[in-house]
Amino acid sequence: MAVELDKLQYNFSMSSQKKDKLWTMRHTAEHLLHQAVKELFPDVQLAMGPATGEGFYFDFDPDIKGKEVKITPEDFPKIEKRMKELKKLNLPVTREEVTVKKAREMFKGNPYKQEWIDEAEKRGDKVTIYWTGKDRDKNSMVDLCAGPHVTSTGEVGEFKLLSMAGAYWRGDENNKMLTRIYATAFFTKEELDKYLWQLEEAKKRDHRKIGREMELFTIREEVGPGLALWLPKGNIIREELEAWAKETEKKWGYKSVATPHITKANLYYTSGHLPYYKNDMFPPMVLPDEAKEEYYLKPMNCPHHHMIYSDRPKSYRDLPLRIAEFGYCYRYEASGELFGLMRVRGFEQNDAHIYCTREQAVEEFVDVMKLHEYYYKALGITDYYLELALRDPENKDKYHGNETMWKEAEELMRKAVSKVDIPMVEEEGSAAFYGPKIDFVVKSSIGREFATSTNQIDLFMGDRFKLKYTDDKGIEQTPVIIHRAPLGSHERFIGFLIEHFAGAFPVWLHPVQVIVIPISQKQQKYAQRIEKELIDLIPELRVELDSSDETLGNKIRKAQGQKVPYMLIVGDKEIKNESVSLRLREGKDGGVMNLVEFVRIIKNVIGKKELQLGF
Amino acid sequence: MAVELDKLQYNFSMSSQKKDKLWTMRHTAEHLLHQAVKELFPDVQLAMGPATGEGFYFDFDPDIKGKEVKITPEDFPKIEKRMKELKKLNLPVTREEVTVKKAREMFKGNPYKQEWIDEAEKRGDKVTIYWTGKDRDKNSMVDLCAGPHVTSTGEVGEFKLLSMAGAYWRGDENNKMLTRIYATAFFTKEELDKYLWQLEEAKKRDHRKIGREMELFTIREEVGPGLALWLPKGNIIREELEAWAKETEKKWGYKSVATPHITKANLYYTSGHLPYYKNDMFPPMVLPDEAKEEYYLKPMNCPHHHMIYSDRPKSYRDLPLRIAEFGYCYRYEASGELFGLMRVRGFEQNDAHIYCTREQAVEEFVDVMKLHEYYYKALGITDYYLELALRDPENKDKYHGNETMWKEAEELMRKAVSKVDIPMVEEEGSAAFYGPKIDFVVKSSIGREFATSTNQIDLFMGDRFKLKYTDDKGIEQTPVIIHRAPLGSHERFIGFLIEHFAGAFPVWLHPVQVIVIPISQKQQKYAQRIEKELIDLIPELRVELDSSDETLGNKIRKAQGQKVPYMLIVGDKEIKNESVSLRLREGKDGGVMNLVEFVRIIKNVIGKKELQLGF
Repeated sequence: MAVELDKLQYNFSMSSQKKDKLWTMRHTAEHLLHQAVKELFPDVQLAMGPATGEGFYFDFDPDIKGKEVKITPEDFPKIEKRMKELKKLNLPVTREEVTVKKAREMFKGNPYKQEWIDEAEKRGDKVTIYWTGKDRDKNSMVDLCAGPHVTSTGEVGEFKLLSMAGAYWRGDENNKMLTRIYATAFFTKEELDKYLWQLEEAKKRDHRKIGREMELFTIREEVGPGLALWLPKGNIIREELEAWAKETEKKWGYKSVATPHITKANLYYTSGHLPYYKNDMFPPMVLPDEAKEEYYLKPMNCPHHHMIYSDRPKSYRDLPLRIAEFGYCYRYEASGELFGLMRVRGFEQNDAHIYCTREQAVEEFVDVMKLHEYYYKALGITDYYLELALRDPENKDKYHGNETMWKEAEELMRKAVSKVDIPMVEEEGSAAFYGPKIDFVVKSSIGREFATSTNQIDLFMGDRFKLKYTDDKGIEQTPVIIHRAPLGSHERFIGFLIEHFAGAFPVWLHPVQVIVIPISQKQQKYAQRIEKELIDLIPELRVELDSSDETLGNKIRKAQGQKVPYMLIVGDKEIKNESVSLRLREGKDGGVMNLVEFVRIIKNVIGKKELQLGF
Repeated sequence: MAVELDKLQYNFSMSSQKKDKLWTMRHTAEHLLHQAVKELFPDVQLAMGPATGEGFYFDFDPDIKGKEVKITPEDFPKIEKRMKELKKLNLPVTREEVTVKKAREMFKGNPYKQEWIDEAEKRGDKVTIYWTGKDRDKNSMVDLCAGPHVTSTGEVGEFKLLSMAGAYWRGDENNKMLTRIYATAFFTKEELDKYLWQLEEAKKRDHRKIGREMELFTIREEVGPGLALWLPKGNIIREELEAWAKETEKKWGYKSVATPHITKANLYYTSGHLPYYKNDMFPPMVLPDEAKEEYYLKPMNCPHHHMIYSDRPKSYRDLPLRIAEFGYCYRYEASGELFGLMRVRGFEQNDAHIYCTREQAVEEFVDVMKLHEYYYKALGITDYYLELALRDPENKDKYHGNETMWKEAEELMRKAVSKVDIPMVEEEGSAAFYGPKIDFVVKSSIGREFATSTNQIDLFMGDRFKLKYTDDKGIEQTPVIIHRAPLGSHERFIGFLIEHFAGAFPVWLHPVQVIVIPISQKQQKYAQRIEKELIDLIPELRVELDSSDETLGNKIRKAQGQKVPYMLIVGDKEIKNESVSLRLREGKDGGVMNLVEFVRIIKNVIGKKELQLGF
């Protein structure tokens, strides 16, 4: 059983309009799966199944009345065949409202459905059912379902069953473990094929697998789930990224600060995170003395930065003030949601806050977007778009701040977006509680999408924290605050880069840049000399020497497994000619050359952060 | 009242032998103070007073029976005069054991003394009293006191009363606030004078004062006491130090890692820190789910590093493995103990752990000491010594581990120390609970001492964490662990450097390296050109331009206040000659020169981390 496949399929996002249509179709595909399983395995108890961003799934209880119904992936073709037949029959899908009483009768004996009915009754909601086919026809099926669905099974696109896994009823580990079938559906075969290819590629590029093979990071049960420890090789990538970001930010006018990871609770009451955000935070530490003061791990860096802003009086001459920090934050994600580096409980954010006047806000926000583009270009990320997250229009009282503030913040961001050439989609309901935001969604080299960076023109927090500056007329004003994090968090961004590069990082980022491989022990001394000369010529170079007793073939395979960009192979011929034989990680022969020539080229590749190897 | 003077006088340490003698004498000096105050102000209630590393103090209750006795520093000469008289009388100081009953009678009406007697009674201890002078003589005095004392008042050296402050009885804020007189005493006038000079210098160099003036750091009530926030300028120093340490450690064969700041409690049960060290740790966060799992902020990085070590099987070929991290730790210091950057609750340690074989341990430890010397030399720290912290021989059951382990760890460290030329003193009773340790005590440029770095050859934790490696015979062994932190914590070390340099950091560390000062607005454009050219020639240079309307004198004073090493003053003459006038921070005139010449010299000064300005 491929547990966690759903998590490997993270973040396949799209515009909400397109999503709605696709999700509706997938939901009907799920009903086909439901019906086919029920027909082929009448003794399973059907539980539930939704459409998802990645396809759909369906949970059933194989073990009722003490006898377990065995369904395995070997049964998939049989199930898919029946689903196709049902699709071909083009059965109508119709919605019906029924009374609670009738629903109870219809789904008698199914405790899962009864639980839903109980809850609908408690809420006073209507109960809806969806029919596939005509009532009591031999091809018909009925399910308790909120919908929506397409109008007939013929509208279901191309689908494929993918895997099985165990899943607790309603995700609660105190409930019974059910069996889940994962599947997906797209409107066209091309889309389905592309998705299946991506999925295969994503498995090969799985950041957990590569992270383990290349010894980049570890997550230890003893320390806690969702808390990544950077091993020496992974930490090289982390530190190189950070140094690059700090150097770049300095050039772009940012000032770097450092703040602690905890604070008194009161700072989060000021920000409004407490009590509303409390469930996403680690529980407090209650000091034994000091009047039982509560301290929290910071879930974000903003309030700490506001404390730095407000530490001295500010004038318009101090603005824009750009304060940056790779700040390590903690959020209490549910343990079931954790996934490698992509979903963690501790993460180090490429954070900054820009304090500026209202007049400066648009230009500053444009610069923030340009900074993203600068980073993306350097990393070969060519495909990305913006997602403007707005309030849920049906539910405006979930949010802080007044109407004018929301409108103005949205307008300022739209104005900034109009000045850059990046496509944007809109998403209702996913704004922050204190204002609209703009996410960057980037696509990895295999086309999978990741939301990496959240940005915001914030007209709310300045007031909450009573931040001030004196304008050129001597009047006290509240600064606008721009939140930004182009490189997201180290954890998530490096997770993304592992997939993007399949572990074959650009030379400047790669943990081991050069490996010297003597053909046999005979060339050991020359190999050592080469290693030493390399370090003399490029002191910061990360070079290794493989002095093991392995065969040449094994040594090369091992280096290739580690995606080492340059292998310098030295045998008797190379000793005689005072040269090295270059082999590149993708298997290409780089030819024989002297060391100085090699150094000249890679120095340039590293210094300019080139994406290619230069040979 | 100079509150917190005691904290300014931090860390004046010395060898325990010398200390014992000095403390004994100071204790008797404290009795002179006690006696003089009682004679001059008969209505105060005498509480207590010990000798300290810095001198001695004495607490009294000025407010009994509702009428407050006013003593101010203006009374110091009078008190000192009487103390000198008592000293001159060369009164014998004699010890006497008395019954609890007798002690109660002797100190009737003094609730403070009665409290001590209660406790002595509970413990079943004997009660001792010390007489100064003969019983009931007019110059005699008796106090409840554990001693020891010198044998007569004539042996008391040179003393001086320093300041007054409020202090809670026994340091507990629930108790009554008493009045404390701080004083000091030395054997010779030279020593006293040197100490008083140091104290004056230390006040001028107070890292809190300079930190505020130079905008290096802040501690905000809203975030919490003992939690420093690095402002942009202070963070430059922090980042420069860190980059230097990382670069140096890389050359010395260390690998850098990064670990989270929290962990499940169990890791500290393994290490033995829980429950014994619990009071020094922040209270736990208790997760609502996950079976109420407890998480703690890390008070040290060791267990996290051990998790990195044990993440993969290790062989003797992997050793020595040197794992380094600037790890941010949290310790729950009592709020009354906190002091600027010197005593904090959050600190970022220049930490590393070396895992090696027993045969490698001495050589590795020697290298650790050499690394200290390398850093110290680069920072102009020329005066330092080692302090070997051993078990309390009277109290060996306070410690983990067996006799052999303690002996061997001590022997290995002594062997290493014998191979370097650094003086060492011994200190019984201050070992870690799991082994002896060696602290480096460094002296600032005014001669004050600071314990900055703790080092240890640890034969205990390897077993506790079941760390293993396979030796060259294929047998499983436990590695020795060396703990080290040459640059201490950023907080404490930068606090020390502020005093050491009086804020005038070496150029490579200084937040602002060059400031361009036009004589008037007329030279503004040329000044801007100079600023730009400087950055073109040295992109990483930290240069500012003072474009304010201030007078030249004020601009220079301001730059000098900020200890900016180089001021480039430009007037019409400089424009005409395409030159700059150099002024150094200590006021010296550096002469007129062209920019390229200036750049050539400071590039060298910065690149080589020179301590001097090069002019």
